[in-house]
Amino acid sequence: MVDVKVELGPRSYDVFIGSGLLRSKEVFSSVIQAQKALIVTNKTIAPLYLDELGKVMDVLGVDFITHLIEDGEKYKNADTLNQIYNCLIKNNLDRFSPIIALGGGVVGDVAGFAAATYQRGVPFVQVPTTLLAQVDSSVGGKTAINHQLGKNMIGAFYQPKAVIIDVRTLSSLPKRQLSAGLAEVIKYGIIRDATFFSWLENNLEYLLAGNLDNLPYAIEKSCRIKAEIVSQDEKEVGSRALLNFGHTFGHAIEAATGYSQFLHGEAVAMGSILASMMSEAMGFISAGTLNRIKNIFLQAGLPITPPNLGLDSYLELMRRDKKVQNGKIRLILLRDIGEAFVSDEYDTNKLNDVLSLEKTDA
Amino acid sequence: MVDVKVELGPRSYDVFIGSGLLRSKEVFSSVIQAQKALIVTNKTIAPLYLDELGKVMDVLGVDFITHLIEDGEKYKNADTLNQIYNCLIKNNLDRFSPIIALGGGVVGDVAGFAAATYQRGVPFVQVPTTLLAQVDSSVGGKTAINHQLGKNMIGAFYQPKAVIIDVRTLSSLPKRQLSAGLAEVIKYGIIRDATFFSWLENNLEYLLAGNLDNLPYAIEKSCRIKAEIVSQDEKEVGSRALLNFGHTFGHAIEAATGYSQFLHGEAVAMGSILASMMSEAMGFISAGTLNRIKNIFLQAGLPITPPNLGLDSYLELMRRDKKVQNGKIRLILLRDIGEAFVSDEYDTNKLNDVLSLEKTDA
Repeated sequence: MVDVKVELGPRSYDVFIGSGLLRSKEVFSSVIQAQKALIVTNKTIAPLYLDELGKVMDVLGVDFITHLIEDGEKYKNADTLNQIYNCLIKNNLDRFSPIIALGGGVVGDVAGFAAATYQRGVPFVQVPTTLLAQVDSSVGGKTAINHQLGKNMIGAFYQPKAVIIDVRTLSSLPKRQLSAGLAEVIKYGIIRDATFFSWLENNLEYLLAGNLDNLPYAIEKSCRIKAEIVSQDEKEVGSRALLNFGHTFGHAIEAATGYSQFLHGEAVAMGSILASMMSEAMGFISAGTLNRIKNIFLQAGLPITPPNLGLDSYLELMRRDKKVQNGKIRLILLRDIGEAFVSDEYDTNKLNDVLSLEKTDA
Repeated sequence: MVDVKVELGPRSYDVFIGSGLLRSKEVFSSVIQAQKALIVTNKTIAPLYLDELGKVMDVLGVDFITHLIEDGEKYKNADTLNQIYNCLIKNNLDRFSPIIALGGGVVGDVAGFAAATYQRGVPFVQVPTTLLAQVDSSVGGKTAINHQLGKNMIGAFYQPKAVIIDVRTLSSLPKRQLSAGLAEVIKYGIIRDATFFSWLENNLEYLLAGNLDNLPYAIEKSCRIKAEIVSQDEKEVGSRALLNFGHTFGHAIEAATGYSQFLHGEAVAMGSILASMMSEAMGFISAGTLNRIKNIFLQAGLPITPPNLGLDSYLELMRRDKKVQNGKIRLILLRDIGEAFVSDEYDTNKLNDVLSLEKTDA
């Protein structure tokens, strides 16, 4: 088992990564000290892993209630959140009873926001079962629901007590979801670590095959990069914005397509292509580097041709981004692979050119 | 002008108390640095004070949008919150645009929760216009909305950037609301400061008359006691629970009467009587001390006979209290005036006796 620390003073916590952790009495007993708990999961995950988690709870003497939500990004909304609140109140769960999120990013985000706001905050434990949740959304304390006018518009920074990653859960993950998770893994290489990027280029076929010799290293490396950035800037006033590489564009693509056509990771892949194209248009990276980036996403089974939403639609949706200040869209651009930076002094004409998508249509 | 500091490290802030602060360019310019802001207020307060606040915003060059909510505790709910979210999104307010709460506790609580959760948190400024909000709800960072099954069930600890108290606003406050605010002022004396309690006994008639020679001192003293307790225990894991004296009982009374029959301060007064009766039943305080407490609330124009909800109803509603741990109701009791403590080792038979309310019916 690997233990990655997220250092945040009194809010510090461990990311445990290993095989079979869902059955680990030791890990769960170190995290959960309560008589009652709520497990939030969905109808896809429950038949696969709820039984194992429930057995550990039984062994620990934790009286747990299970609440199932619908599967899919479009259910990360106020209705689903309210159903969790109702369940918490009806079962008399108190301020000391943890909420355990068993599932992917949607389960973690909405259960985490419920934990952040029920009785002004109750303990929260992440048990991510998708690659995307394991390497990204479960670490760092971002919780949220979507609003019809924008993704993650309502939420809170609320750190979990622990993140427990059982890599065995990836064996049941559909190939499309594995690829979507790899989009965020690749992102860490692009923004922060050229060596890791090269390692990914060389190992992508093993990762795609779900190889448990290689995936745990990719997960650990991703969590370490994220933990380091989050420790420096928990509330995203500075460097944490780098983690948003490809996301300003990607969120626009997700919103325009109703959060249903593309998985989040797929939108991030296309958004990363757009951010890289903009970096190349600004002369920061070469055409060769742009091609390496396109290639790795392509190899990972991800879409690399962003949809042509139209310039106005892109700009309008991007203006809803949380990095916007005084109406100006801020972008995460690249100086090189491994070197991302926040920019609000880019050439808007070049942004318009990139978003007009003549190049990707070629 | 008096400036009470709430010391919370990076989240520290000032509580400014003075006459005419609503017109103070100096105070507002020290707090608000943004191009856009949202003012949340209600239909009662807007005609009285929005014009003054708006003029200061104009002088500072802040482009402000005003959102009116309904007046009353029963509107402190998810619908009102959603209307604020919609207003924020439709007006493209970003992460850096402050939300300013101009009004009483309901405005402050719901606008504060919107600020805590819109885009995972935007700057928040409290401009309380009722005595209750000035001495209690605007200070300390508790934000919340009610759920039909319990008061303040959904919320967040989210500190404002500043609290700006213009004591002139009390001149327009209905007498019933002034009394309700005095309930919380008296509470500070009861839990923490016997000298202040005596001062209140001697000055209550001036306070009740809305005398601006005496009220600012009562506000300052209340804010100082609250600031000190909040600085020691921001998230209420220990001593902050003392501020809840009378509230476990009071919240049950409010919930049972649909948040409409009694003002919060009136429920707190009756709840404080019940907590004092329980303290006397346990032998912690004398009958004479209990009488002093009853008398001061009576003098303040507050109800001192709690409604007979029935024992089961009281206990069921009190079990929804946020201090409950593993099903056990924790009470704030008194050893003397000025000395409150948290107890979960009280005699439940005596609690049942007190809640059966034979004594208050006598």
